[in-house]
Amino acid sequence: MKKHNFFAGPAILPAEVLSEAAQAVQSFGDMGLSLVEISHRSKEFVAVMEEAQQLTKELLHLPDDFAVLFLQGGASLQFAMSAYNLMRSDGSGAYLETGSWAKKAVKEANIIGKGHVVASSADTNFNYIPKDFTLPDDADYFHITTNNTIYGTEIRDLQPMVDAAKAKGIPLVADMSSDIFSGPIPASDFGIIYAGAQKNLGPAGATLVIVRKDILGKTDRAIPTMLNYQTHIDKDSMFNTPPVFAVYTSLLTMRWIKKHGGLQAMQARNEKKADLLYNEIDRNSLFEGTAAKEDRSLMNATFVMPKAELEPAFLQVCTEAGLVGVKGHRSVGGFRASIYNAMELDSVQLLVDVMQDFEKKNG
Amino acid sequence: MKKHNFFAGPAILPAEVLSEAAQAVQSFGDMGLSLVEISHRSKEFVAVMEEAQQLTKELLHLPDDFAVLFLQGGASLQFAMSAYNLMRSDGSGAYLETGSWAKKAVKEANIIGKGHVVASSADTNFNYIPKDFTLPDDADYFHITTNNTIYGTEIRDLQPMVDAAKAKGIPLVADMSSDIFSGPIPASDFGIIYAGAQKNLGPAGATLVIVRKDILGKTDRAIPTMLNYQTHIDKDSMFNTPPVFAVYTSLLTMRWIKKHGGLQAMQARNEKKADLLYNEIDRNSLFEGTAAKEDRSLMNATFVMPKAELEPAFLQVCTEAGLVGVKGHRSVGGFRASIYNAMELDSVQLLVDVMQDFEKKNG
Repeated sequence: MKKHNFFAGPAILPAEVLSEAAQAVQSFGDMGLSLVEISHRSKEFVAVMEEAQQLTKELLHLPDDFAVLFLQGGASLQFAMSAYNLMRSDGSGAYLETGSWAKKAVKEANIIGKGHVVASSADTNFNYIPKDFTLPDDADYFHITTNNTIYGTEIRDLQPMVDAAKAKGIPLVADMSSDIFSGPIPASDFGIIYAGAQKNLGPAGATLVIVRKDILGKTDRAIPTMLNYQTHIDKDSMFNTPPVFAVYTSLLTMRWIKKHGGLQAMQARNEKKADLLYNEIDRNSLFEGTAAKEDRSLMNATFVMPKAELEPAFLQVCTEAGLVGVKGHRSVGGFRASIYNAMELDSVQLLVDVMQDFEKKNG
Repeated sequence: MKKHNFFAGPAILPAEVLSEAAQAVQSFGDMGLSLVEISHRSKEFVAVMEEAQQLTKELLHLPDDFAVLFLQGGASLQFAMSAYNLMRSDGSGAYLETGSWAKKAVKEANIIGKGHVVASSADTNFNYIPKDFTLPDDADYFHITTNNTIYGTEIRDLQPMVDAAKAKGIPLVADMSSDIFSGPIPASDFGIIYAGAQKNLGPAGATLVIVRKDILGKTDRAIPTMLNYQTHIDKDSMFNTPPVFAVYTSLLTMRWIKKHGGLQAMQARNEKKADLLYNEIDRNSLFEGTAAKEDRSLMNATFVMPKAELEPAFLQVCTEAGLVGVKGHRSVGGFRASIYNAMELDSVQLLVDVMQDFEKKNG
């Protein structure tokens, strides 16, 4: 039976990407060796890294004052790195607290220095994006989490965030782990964008980091070498051995995005899937969405059943239909359907069909 | 033409490991999904992580007071992590400086606190392992690099290092990136052992870290969450998404090691290959080894040509014979043949044949 992969991350990747990645593990190009057993200094792998960096710039329309890095450690390490590299010893970081990952970023700022929460939706279990906030005077940067995988919320309009940081003259830093490359963004208005690869981009193990180079070098801290963005910029993201398989697979995904029309086309594709699913959640008497409508994520739709006693039965019919990974995160409960770039409309349609069928039998 | 992979890292892996890893990227077990697109919290991946940890303990005969972690960031991040976790604010780290990676570890200790070099072979371009040293009184740990990939040296007898740390009552910390699992070691006498996977273990992107749990929690430093070993121990190496492909492939390699007789058998296999190659280096009038004989590495054989003008021609015949990656590191020059666990004796024999043939034509 065909499986439809709704996992929140690691998550669905295009079938042709997986097939080409598997082939490279067996034998890469015409080297007669596997991708994972060749030197990262070989011209073959250097070409992979360079194309991955160049395609990132092309997809996001990034000018040359930005560096593109593929690092390790996930967004969790970026919480520390962004604070280390931008926060002066008498300064602070300003954070919009929109979920448990944002909270972890704040926690890290407070280990390294001082993190200000400028607004939080913790009071309603993070089911909306706070829009009313003031950045403190000592803030060295403003940090946002653009998509909150667990709670199904997304900052659908980035402009107010860009404007707030600009008004203070500080860089905007964004954790885009779960919505990077899902649609066009004003990337060149950001100071740092980072994203764990394992949702829209590639396998776990690579973290895409985009840095506007002129914001660095302004802190007086001693930064551990590996946590210093300048270390990696100076060595073109090859200071030490990069996670070659994750970088290559990310490159394959970016080629796939470009081939399918780029970020504008991804946005249209993602809106179509999200509309289909959210319309059914709103129409179906057995389900209700958990996130504020204007902040609903295009990537992760969260929904519960008012009659919670029916949830195990619905999960069961999903499993029987080959719909995998729809169980909600324990902190929200119910269901979560992650519908990243690679998810086909047909799979979302099948989920909707199963929801409708379930309503007929149990409504 | 069959290629013989002498790259120093990323490096050769067993053919059956690569084949099984490629299969898992296509479709993993009976899930109907790729290994890299399933949740790391799925029971299928949790089983991978648990078996990888258990097999590490089994191969190294580690008792239960050790934790096994698969982290990200390579040995380079471990330079910082080991110092952060063990060095008190009024203490220091003692380092044996046996190469450029050891130097980087010292540099990191000095960013975080204080690193003492207790002995160094820098004066002779690191061509031997210093054996005469005294650990300073304020040292919180003693750090060694067991194999020096660039210079072709290896600490062949670990006991004096173990004894020195024991006499001071401090943990022994070892970077074993390039000789982990190449033979039996007294693992339970170490405080921390770490190894970037990309030589004897798996693809780049995973770092094996073994920690004796009772040495932690004794420093007064604020440690960034991701750099704190306790963070990862508390979450069974799943604090954040692990590098699933690199962990799985490392597991496949460990299964292969076990199937082929474990570390005792690896040692015998590696000694046979190293003897064959070093005997030829010593016999052949055109070549000479660069490392002190008693400190020669079983993993990386470094050699040069007294008539340096012949080196390009020898590199050419290697390429023609399908011998890949034998060019030496720029800081030593000449040649380096990396003959990790997965390298077959036949490939080493072919290199020896090419050396003998070259001598006949050019000697």
